[in-house]
Amino acid sequence: MIFTRQSVAFLGLGLISGSLASALRASGWQGELLGWGPREPSLKRGLELGIIDRYSLDLDEIIDSSDMLIIGAPPVATGDLLAELLPKAMASAHQPIVTDLASIKGWVIDRANCEYSRFVPGHPIAGSEDSGVAASRADLFSGREVILTPNADLDPIALQEVTAMWALTGARVTHMPVADHDAALAASSHSPHMLAYALTMALADDPLQPMQHGGGALRDMTRIAGSDPVMWRDIALTNRAALLTALTEVEGGLAHLKRLIEASDGSGMHAYFTRCRDVRRAHDRVLNPLFEQSDSNEESKP
Amino acid sequence: MIFTRQSVAFLGLGLISGSLASALRASGWQGELLGWGPREPSLKRGLELGIIDRYSLDLDEIIDSSDMLIIGAPPVATGDLLAELLPKAMASAHQPIVTDLASIKGWVIDRANCEYSRFVPGHPIAGSEDSGVAASRADLFSGREVILTPNADLDPIALQEVTAMWALTGARVTHMPVADHDAALAASSHSPHMLAYALTMALADDPLQPMQHGGGALRDMTRIAGSDPVMWRDIALTNRAALLTALTEVEGGLAHLKRLIEASDGSGMHAYFTRCRDVRRAHDRVLNPLFEQSDSNEESKP
Repeated sequence: MIFTRQSVAFLGLGLISGSLASALRASGWQGELLGWGPREPSLKRGLELGIIDRYSLDLDEIIDSSDMLIIGAPPVATGDLLAELLPKAMASAHQPIVTDLASIKGWVIDRANCEYSRFVPGHPIAGSEDSGVAASRADLFSGREVILTPNADLDPIALQEVTAMWALTGARVTHMPVADHDAALAASSHSPHMLAYALTMALADDPLQPMQHGGGALRDMTRIAGSDPVMWRDIALTNRAALLTALTEVEGGLAHLKRLIEASDGSGMHAYFTRCRDVRRAHDRVLNPLFEQSDSNEESKP
Repeated sequence: MIFTRQSVAFLGLGLISGSLASALRASGWQGELLGWGPREPSLKRGLELGIIDRYSLDLDEIIDSSDMLIIGAPPVATGDLLAELLPKAMASAHQPIVTDLASIKGWVIDRANCEYSRFVPGHPIAGSEDSGVAASRADLFSGREVILTPNADLDPIALQEVTAMWALTGARVTHMPVADHDAALAASSHSPHMLAYALTMALADDPLQPMQHGGGALRDMTRIAGSDPVMWRDIALTNRAALLTALTEVEGGLAHLKRLIEASDGSGMHAYFTRCRDVRRAHDRVLNPLFEQSDSNEESKP
């Protein structure tokens, strides 16, 4: 499958879109990389860093100049921009392919409210607690999953081109129904972010200053509490029902574990922890696609 | 402050004790490293890997041969062993220094139930989801905190020697009262582990298989769910009250956040997430002592 587009425009240039532009360039793809956005500083910075070839503040000009448009913005801005962009793309002579990178698919598609057959909803499962185009990394998607949620009316050429583009970044593309995507991601990403926030908040005002006495566990369990507040506000607002369901599941798991601790049920805890270790290890290759597996677990503590 | 001991024995050889032995050797310290434990395979493996110089299965012989004894075991085994060891050390002619590495101090000291003035309770805030002597790393303690909980009757020479030993590993030594240690660590380490377990359990049986669709966030938020079940059962059993208090704090933070999500309170969420980001960033140097700080946050998303 070959990516045949010659000009790709990023509408909004931040960590994810900038990383995708960098990955396309690093792959050897020879087309033009354009930028558009409401804020010139990010675009200027992207140009200075060599992440895009040129930018414009004129959306119509960018639509005319591009044969693929990729929205790189938090969910609410993505939905708002799609609602403006899709009718224009549909009305244009060259009908450019449109895709997005938002973590929520249902709300965004509903907000766009336009049956454009060349719009391919997408979501790369990759990110960082850093934000902004200067944090872009060409290897951000390597080994990671990109979920597309195509509907039945989608132009197969558009789906093929978006898939071919992601293949250039080292990502693997999968397909899911919209509702499944939003429920699965509520569980695998959105609820974990809320846990990191709740943990950080619980420690913030503790007079013993536990954050000052943290090691690798606390480093990892709070890393994503440094994520972009606007992005995560948007995600919580736009995937509200699925997120609340996922959080209720985690609360249930925690309540069960608390009961075991309250009852000093050592064998119950041992079984709980062992099951979790097995589940975590079974998914190590998905969660750590870039790293060799450790084989250092054959000895146990005295 | 110079570490003057010439023979250090590890009672139990696993990830933490093996890493300490490796760090002492890597520092250029020239003394002898001995091992003792209930299980010969770990000791044999430690010898093969060059982590210890020799081992014995005879505890009395090891006490006689060592001028410092370091217990490397989960909390319950540490307490049990201290109860046997401290009276022997106290009765010996050379009165060796004794220290331990257990994550809990109050329970372990109570279980030892022996006022030996050369016992220095200790806890390095470092670890890994891996376990066993083969996972040892000489740099495990570099930049990390080691908390000692000395009481008023402690022999100052013993405290000085244990402090000097840890300095050789690149760790920084701090002192805390026993109860403060157990409460702070319940918040900074024990409760985060329980959250990782509860999250993993919540995802384990989800028919959408969210673990298959995880990225870096889920990788980090579940990493420590791969930890040693015996170790964590012991921690939950022996620091029960402080752990339950810390978990109740996190539940409160999560319940508050859920209310904001239920109410679609965007500005409340934004304030909550921004505060968490600030708190997390303010502790980046403590939590990531080995890494240069990123300066990639000066641009924000469109």
